[in-house]
Amino acid sequence: MHLRAKTTSDGCCRRLKAVRNELMEAGLDAYLATDVKNVYYLTGFLDISTASLNMIIPSEGMPSLLVMPLSLEAASSQARGCQVKTLASGELMIGRILEEIRSAGLRRIGFDNLQLQTYLAMTKESEDVELVNGSGIVAEQRRIKDSEERSFIRRASEITDAGMEAALGAIRSGAKEYEVAGEAEYAMRMRGSMGAAFDTLVASGPRSAYPHGLSTEREICDGDLVTVDLGATWKGYCSDLTRTVVVGKGQEKAFRMLRRVKEVHDRVLSEIRPGVEAARVDEVARTVLGPGLAEYFVHGLGHGVGLDIHEAPTMSRTSKDILEAGNVVTDEPGVYVSGFGGVRTEDTVLVTENGCEKLTAAPYE
Amino acid sequence: MHLRAKTTSDGCCRRLKAVRNELMEAGLDAYLATDVKNVYYLTGFLDISTASLNMIIPSEGMPSLLVMPLSLEAASSQARGCQVKTLASGELMIGRILEEIRSAGLRRIGFDNLQLQTYLAMTKESEDVELVNGSGIVAEQRRIKDSEERSFIRRASEITDAGMEAALGAIRSGAKEYEVAGEAEYAMRMRGSMGAAFDTLVASGPRSAYPHGLSTEREICDGDLVTVDLGATWKGYCSDLTRTVVVGKGQEKAFRMLRRVKEVHDRVLSEIRPGVEAARVDEVARTVLGPGLAEYFVHGLGHGVGLDIHEAPTMSRTSKDILEAGNVVTDEPGVYVSGFGGVRTEDTVLVTENGCEKLTAAPYE
Repeated sequence: MHLRAKTTSDGCCRRLKAVRNELMEAGLDAYLATDVKNVYYLTGFLDISTASLNMIIPSEGMPSLLVMPLSLEAASSQARGCQVKTLASGELMIGRILEEIRSAGLRRIGFDNLQLQTYLAMTKESEDVELVNGSGIVAEQRRIKDSEERSFIRRASEITDAGMEAALGAIRSGAKEYEVAGEAEYAMRMRGSMGAAFDTLVASGPRSAYPHGLSTEREICDGDLVTVDLGATWKGYCSDLTRTVVVGKGQEKAFRMLRRVKEVHDRVLSEIRPGVEAARVDEVARTVLGPGLAEYFVHGLGHGVGLDIHEAPTMSRTSKDILEAGNVVTDEPGVYVSGFGGVRTEDTVLVTENGCEKLTAAPYE
Repeated sequence: MHLRAKTTSDGCCRRLKAVRNELMEAGLDAYLATDVKNVYYLTGFLDISTASLNMIIPSEGMPSLLVMPLSLEAASSQARGCQVKTLASGELMIGRILEEIRSAGLRRIGFDNLQLQTYLAMTKESEDVELVNGSGIVAEQRRIKDSEERSFIRRASEITDAGMEAALGAIRSGAKEYEVAGEAEYAMRMRGSMGAAFDTLVASGPRSAYPHGLSTEREICDGDLVTVDLGATWKGYCSDLTRTVVVGKGQEKAFRMLRRVKEVHDRVLSEIRPGVEAARVDEVARTVLGPGLAEYFVHGLGHGVGLDIHEAPTMSRTSKDILEAGNVVTDEPGVYVSGFGGVRTEDTVLVTENGCEKLTAAPYE
């Protein structure tokens, strides 16, 4: 699936230059990008459908973008800063990649997210080519969102807010979970979302204790906790938002969980700023939650958001990341009690020079 | 995201037994399944959200399903025929997999779709474990859909037809492509689709020449060719359907392309039956299309459909597949003319004992 490039040529040119600098520093002859999001980041051409999209960036000279014949038309009109090439009839992509590499005399190649079978075939067929994990080379750049990327995530967040409004408006006793998801997705699409950033989650009653519970045919009941987790995309960029509500009267325990999680969520917002260790923010969240509830917080506090719904930096106990201005991360503490239900409150947040700014703005009640 | 298991225990048990038979034949001690669709196929537990889901199936004894803590609750209640385990605090998945393998004395392990980084880490950390590509072991089983799977794809196809009806009803001069996609997705969700099988495509005017053109903010114009390609999912199973229509009067050339592609599509239906080489059916399609148009048919004729939207068997020039009863494939010839537009007609088709049966049933005009 192709998207007309909205990323400026300037942006792509700067990003390519940064990749080349990294290649120099690492002593690599070229970079092989096979991740569709990385190729979009570097060329402005988004082709989600293609299993085989290969961009070869030599440390000097014009990059080549190898696409399947069905993507040639779109890639030729949209990809910038590279030469678009396709396969001859009967030619295999793996052979063509090796030919490009050999004919240019490239030996040490950094790669991003190479598939195992491609890696094994390349190492088997070409003893003179050395493949090196260079996934960080583009991923590190993508951590810091430039002004254009921020504006795209802002727009995705506005659309996501509208999706949440539609979802919360559709929640009532007797509604099916998938109906609530449908109203949310419709509201986002009609505002120009390219498609959901991930499968919309509407998890009600005991199912709200599943942090990633999809949306099923379960009918929502009076007193249920209902968690809605959704995200729109704009120009390929994602947003991520979760709210949990109680239908009707509900139990006092449910409201207590909601208050505690919201308290943690707010405290996290006051902790996020450049220079802070991401693991430290996760730890603060668990401390504020307290030992009685922290054991029910079965996932990390948050993750980076951009072209991928999960990317660097990660806020978890095992994270080595340090927050920087320009990161976009989620703040999403949650508590999940088996057989009873769960609560999660999540916003997408931009790390600013002095602290952070919430990009999603749905109300909490 | 978790789906309550709808696959019968019997089905999972039979599938596990078939995997074990393959392990014996290949001289493997165990199978490592990391593909979420394979794990669903074998256990009834669908967890799309989890990057790290690992099922270890020894040739004898109970399989282990290793999940992240956030999936424990859902996996424990839904996965059948295996023991569900999670990580201790701070434990890494890769270490845990190796521990399970070593403690059971397993040495030769077949894998399905292992990530490159996992493969490299496992081969580096464990010299006594031999990893063998066993992707075919489950993929081969999945080619032949059993009666339950057929019923799921039938239901997905009915919902997909309703989505196409909504899309075609929304196409008019002035409508944006994404609005048409929104109506289609809404219609499918409200009939219980678990979510779109792939990003809905509404490609109009010159954009219809992009075989995978997504849905953009372009406004549909009078005379445009508009291609709609969409699919619903039911219990994890996909369907796939494409129609191209002309808005308003249109040019004679557009109608001529439509008639020719429909003719090819119908001829393909008469060719599909057990025992036929998939490459041969692709060749027939190109012959019927004729040399003048075949050069604009820039993709394969079709692909298998099931838990994945693209799976075996493949109908293309390079395919080695032979069609068998129980395969579900698409029949989707297309013609794409740069600057003018494109046409594609696609149905999802079940290979029967004597021929084939269309599962999608949207009208062609």
